[in-house]
Amino acid sequence: MSTTASDPYFSRLDGVAESTRRLDPVVWDGGEGPLTRDELDRYHRNGFLLFPELIGPERVAAMWEEAQRLAVRGRERGEEGMIIEPESDVVRSVFLLHRHSRLFAEMIASPELVGRARQLLGGDVYVHQSRVNFKPGFLGKEFYWHSDFETWHMEDGMPRMRAVSASIMLTENNEFNGPLMLIPGSHHTYFRCPGKTPDDHHTMSLRKQEYGVPTRDQLTDLVRERGIRSAKGPAGTVLFFECNVMHGSSGNITPYQRNGMFLVFNSLENRLQEPFAGIPPRPGFLAERNPVPVP
Amino acid sequence: MSTTASDPYFSRLDGVAESTRRLDPVVWDGGEGPLTRDELDRYHRNGFLLFPELIGPERVAAMWEEAQRLAVRGRERGEEGMIIEPESDVVRSVFLLHRHSRLFAEMIASPELVGRARQLLGGDVYVHQSRVNFKPGFLGKEFYWHSDFETWHMEDGMPRMRAVSASIMLTENNEFNGPLMLIPGSHHTYFRCPGKTPDDHHTMSLRKQEYGVPTRDQLTDLVRERGIRSAKGPAGTVLFFECNVMHGSSGNITPYQRNGMFLVFNSLENRLQEPFAGIPPRPGFLAERNPVPVP
Repeated sequence: MSTTASDPYFSRLDGVAESTRRLDPVVWDGGEGPLTRDELDRYHRNGFLLFPELIGPERVAAMWEEAQRLAVRGRERGEEGMIIEPESDVVRSVFLLHRHSRLFAEMIASPELVGRARQLLGGDVYVHQSRVNFKPGFLGKEFYWHSDFETWHMEDGMPRMRAVSASIMLTENNEFNGPLMLIPGSHHTYFRCPGKTPDDHHTMSLRKQEYGVPTRDQLTDLVRERGIRSAKGPAGTVLFFECNVMHGSSGNITPYQRNGMFLVFNSLENRLQEPFAGIPPRPGFLAERNPVPVP
Repeated sequence: MSTTASDPYFSRLDGVAESTRRLDPVVWDGGEGPLTRDELDRYHRNGFLLFPELIGPERVAAMWEEAQRLAVRGRERGEEGMIIEPESDVVRSVFLLHRHSRLFAEMIASPELVGRARQLLGGDVYVHQSRVNFKPGFLGKEFYWHSDFETWHMEDGMPRMRAVSASIMLTENNEFNGPLMLIPGSHHTYFRCPGKTPDDHHTMSLRKQEYGVPTRDQLTDLVRERGIRSAKGPAGTVLFFECNVMHGSSGNITPYQRNGMFLVFNSLENRLQEPFAGIPPRPGFLAERNPVPVP
């Protein structure tokens, strides 16, 4: 493939399971903003920061109502970006919050969220992807280890590591209901994942990640060296995690539901190109191609 | 079914999802033995007791070697009670430890294990089931909520609640690799599970529990009232849990393997009858029908 030669973050070549050092800064700016020097250091070192109850209960309740409203409206109108459970006709995810909802747009533009993202990414940012996941108890499926950046680079054409996700817990995440597990410090390394990307991979990958995942040997070494941490907290807790940090989650057999909002901030300097896997771009609700800076 | 009318612990009738109070004591004796008054009280209340590092590292290592030896021998000879992964020909479980191995038989007869069991069950006990599970990382499947007693009663003919399991961790169980989750106090209630038992259920149920499981409504109420606890600890930690306590475990996507030995002690006064589900009994490696008291 012609892209491979010039792409430092190439991946998904048959039989190639190697790793390479990250070429980009982790903290792009670190100037003025809500994050302290110590927090920036920890983010640099671990690749994530957890803020217990950063969002108050009234705002969590408002987000929850708005998400429900969007789900009902989206299903009625057949809007783009609704992921519907085939058996039950129940909405599992609502995407494009930053476009569909004034409340979410304001939320995103609040200093707690965009302020931190600007500080980490150094300057103006836009929303690469936004969604609410409704995960009822008993049914939660596991999500295997992956780096978001590997997917966004190969399937969406995100050129460099200059994006950060914010995961806002709308229900408690505890040790039982499959919280996000992260490998601290894994974002310093880029893992080239073996295997070719099938066409229309994205229609499957929202449910189960089978391509763009590291090998068991890579994961074994990584965890031996760095361990695992999990993101737990009551509703309103926010996890910021770097786009290249390795993460996954176990399934959930408990009655505890696990609802959350996910936001991906990307630097305006890092807008999407053609997918580096040489495949057609994924739909816009998964990867924003018309960036508007968050005010 | 004729058994239903006279069986206080009937279960698996179409559409019947009800619960009834436990009729049997939890602690049958409580006399002399290694367990303190406080431990007996906690066992009565919660239905389980966790003893961190009860078994020393040398004995854990010896058990591990013996288990490996039994697996190799069992596969070579095609012995009963070997559960083999179909794809890889790898042994996943070795049963009948109390029959096949002097080392395990001695281990079982040690005061740490049988002493506690005798104290809880009031008098002489035998081994209803024994096994080692080899659970490598990445592959661990979830095990849905269930009461062991419900299965042992319906499928093996165990008449009353007078049995206790000992789970001996041969590798660390932590919050990431799918430790056993228990609902404290759930053993005070017997949940009749809806649905009929299919023939040869046991060939499936070792992998996935689909019958003999409570409904989501039952579990939701139970967890709301009582919460969830998980059994974590380093290798050598032993969990004793009552035969009717509701438990389950999540899958394991981490590289951390989860090997363990399981022992079920049953009172000699509680030996098996015909299965209460009116089906043929399961094989002897799952349910001992020729009880020999542990010396």
